[in-house]
Amino acid sequence: MESTVRKIHDNTIRILGEIGVNLYSDSVIEKIKKHGIKVEGKTAFFTEKQIMDAVAKVPKSFDVKARNPKHDMHIGDNDVEYCPGYGCTNIIEPDGTLREALRDDYVKFLKLIEASDVFNINGGLAVQPCDINADNSHMIMMSDILEYSNKCIMSIPGPRKSVQELMDMMTIVFGEEELKKEGKSLTLISTVSPLVIDEHALDSMEVCIEYNQPMIITPGPISGGTGPITLAANLSLGNAEALAAICISQILKEGTPVIYGLLPTTSNIRNGCISIGSPGFTLQSKYSAELARFYGLPNRSGGTQSDAKGVSVQSGYEAMMNMFSTRLNGANFVIHSAGILDSFGAMSYEKFICDLEIISMVDYYFKDVPVTEDDLAFGAIKEVGHGGQFLSNSHTFERCRTVPWFHSIGSNDILPDNRMYVEGLGSNMEKEIGKLIDSYRKPEMDSIVKKQLDEYLSVRNVIR
Amino acid sequence: MESTVRKIHDNTIRILGEIGVNLYSDSVIEKIKKHGIKVEGKTAFFTEKQIMDAVAKVPKSFDVKARNPKHDMHIGDNDVEYCPGYGCTNIIEPDGTLREALRDDYVKFLKLIEASDVFNINGGLAVQPCDINADNSHMIMMSDILEYSNKCIMSIPGPRKSVQELMDMMTIVFGEEELKKEGKSLTLISTVSPLVIDEHALDSMEVCIEYNQPMIITPGPISGGTGPITLAANLSLGNAEALAAICISQILKEGTPVIYGLLPTTSNIRNGCISIGSPGFTLQSKYSAELARFYGLPNRSGGTQSDAKGVSVQSGYEAMMNMFSTRLNGANFVIHSAGILDSFGAMSYEKFICDLEIISMVDYYFKDVPVTEDDLAFGAIKEVGHGGQFLSNSHTFERCRTVPWFHSIGSNDILPDNRMYVEGLGSNMEKEIGKLIDSYRKPEMDSIVKKQLDEYLSVRNVIR
Repeated sequence: MESTVRKIHDNTIRILGEIGVNLYSDSVIEKIKKHGIKVEGKTAFFTEKQIMDAVAKVPKSFDVKARNPKHDMHIGDNDVEYCPGYGCTNIIEPDGTLREALRDDYVKFLKLIEASDVFNINGGLAVQPCDINADNSHMIMMSDILEYSNKCIMSIPGPRKSVQELMDMMTIVFGEEELKKEGKSLTLISTVSPLVIDEHALDSMEVCIEYNQPMIITPGPISGGTGPITLAANLSLGNAEALAAICISQILKEGTPVIYGLLPTTSNIRNGCISIGSPGFTLQSKYSAELARFYGLPNRSGGTQSDAKGVSVQSGYEAMMNMFSTRLNGANFVIHSAGILDSFGAMSYEKFICDLEIISMVDYYFKDVPVTEDDLAFGAIKEVGHGGQFLSNSHTFERCRTVPWFHSIGSNDILPDNRMYVEGLGSNMEKEIGKLIDSYRKPEMDSIVKKQLDEYLSVRNVIR
Repeated sequence: MESTVRKIHDNTIRILGEIGVNLYSDSVIEKIKKHGIKVEGKTAFFTEKQIMDAVAKVPKSFDVKARNPKHDMHIGDNDVEYCPGYGCTNIIEPDGTLREALRDDYVKFLKLIEASDVFNINGGLAVQPCDINADNSHMIMMSDILEYSNKCIMSIPGPRKSVQELMDMMTIVFGEEELKKEGKSLTLISTVSPLVIDEHALDSMEVCIEYNQPMIITPGPISGGTGPITLAANLSLGNAEALAAICISQILKEGTPVIYGLLPTTSNIRNGCISIGSPGFTLQSKYSAELARFYGLPNRSGGTQSDAKGVSVQSGYEAMMNMFSTRLNGANFVIHSAGILDSFGAMSYEKFICDLEIISMVDYYFKDVPVTEDDLAFGAIKEVGHGGQFLSNSHTFERCRTVPWFHSIGSNDILPDNRMYVEGLGSNMEKEIGKLIDSYRKPEMDSIVKKQLDEYLSVRNVIR
């Protein structure tokens, strides 16, 4: 594995040195030229030394602070933080119907995410609502995030103006000094594969850096589409984009906290669609984490991605493969960890709740087998002896509620008619969704802050 | 992990030394006493030295030979061999209906297993048919195996008489000398948890050893039922049974090939049912492989077990979790690798075919990312340059049929109506089952051998 990473790294350095990355920002080009980066027209070329010097300046780990300190996140080291699905404009209903996501869905997801213990971050594009004005949607969503959540904030990328507006709103809530002191939000900075970083990304980066808000650098080349079909090449291409962007971030401001967030996908070459339920996708997520470790950077990788167009055996095995591999390979920050169906095309409430079950299973697995004297239970084994049973033994009684993992969605209950099973599964999902929604409590917000936020929106003619 | 294994080992040795294992065979007790094993009544006590001396005598790896040498298996080292689901008396239909398994199902599974590239072994209790006489079912099934398969033979355990009859039948096919020369079959030898090895198991072992046929030693304590609720204790208990049986096998005949096949399960303590879809089950499978490695023994572990009562999101994520962990932890021989539903209660053709998809995904993942110069594709990346696309590049064309992994059951095809998805999935499963059945070719059998087999059954009044 080490030599695989080394070969991808060497290929990456060759790409950065000989092919380069096109940058669509005159101000950024100006700044990196001053730092000795070779630029021809829009194309910037990086040497291995420039890259390695830059990555050495990135914090190995950092904190993101939540309005409720219970939800502060530590990003890096051996910690893992989950973020739900991101960016879908559609919802898939339990009967398979595909429909546009609405503002109500956005709020419902904010509540589900807030109520779940799995997440310490909320917001972002939990869904992209189609019933609100696209020009203002980022402000409406941010006002929803601030109203419904006090976890860390997943912010929303966009043009310079919109990222600035979100920073303004967060400034109202946290105060400028407090906001700039330490990360409160994460923003995705996407490259455009192959080998382009566009104006929005570079502008967003400048704004985030001004407010000292950490970013996730996230190239997503599609093998066979926007990237080469061979995985090692697709990884090299995405790695080149990630390293170029990270290098730029450190030139703009040394020590800027960034997460290495490469997420290369595959394509289903038979129909031209992106594919995120294939093992090629899972393998590339693994190497995203491996490459980040190689550079000593906190990583974003993995998720419970699926190509399935409904909650199904396919959504189950794809989501589990992705999440198991995610944890196995030491992801620090996991986007798309719940709800994604249809190759990033849609969110599903039922998939969301199934993915929480999957995360719970994988968490149990990676906690491994405890081996205290109590766990080894020599006394109980001696007591029961040969051919006996442990069901009625006190060792079992005392631990039966705490030691085993329990199904929430799945079941192995005995049924009067086995054909009731599938329906029961659906009803378990609805019950668990209902339980989460019922347990949701809206956080409090200072009335002055609330008024200031309302005014900020009102001045801009934004109607929530 | 090493210290976890060491603690389980130490606990095991304490169990074997202080509690012991009850053996229901006077002849075996006689023989092990002569070898210095302490026995009181039916209870045998083993020292660490006796155990470690015995495991050192077991071959680290061995071969099983098939009638068609293409399907010879190497058991041990870094190799993995799959065996389908085993032991179910029921079938779950696509609509969820639970029904008894019939002889026709047994034959249909033999054909599916024979036609699939995944398996080099066939037979066993692929299902346990309910429409044939239980007294003779083992002979009917063996005659089916010999008629429909030329892969390695999964044999059928039972009382001494029945195991002897199966050896007789294999002797007719292979000839006594050839059969005894090398393994042609594998037989499961089960213990009875807690801490009993019964007459059938010990008798079967004696017969297998007489014919030099390798065995899989397979305790299966149920945590909270026939074993302690804490996993470390349940593993210790099962390990004690496995090591006692292995020690006996080496006393009966030094160098007898055995597979360490511990498969502890969990229970759903809420309803008392066995549970094999819980992460506690998966974790114990992991330690089954770890323990085998600690003793230097080839291991049987893992599978695609599920508690689900139908092909569903639950069957998908449970099967994937189990199979991913199986491969991750270096299983050598995997029973229950396709078809199991309902906590070992039933086989399903559709689950079988989904599990083959899961195995294909996991195989692709564990082959890892190739990194030849060709895979790194620097030339193609340079050719496409900035902001281009790879879909129409020759590098993609030349590799689009060989490099990616393709769905067989799942899909991400664009549908006129998304509600067609689930139905499409079902139809993909039926198509793949049909393809396998259509590709099945019955192996040839020498007419004299065929006649001898018929006579053997006829003399015993066994009607096929």
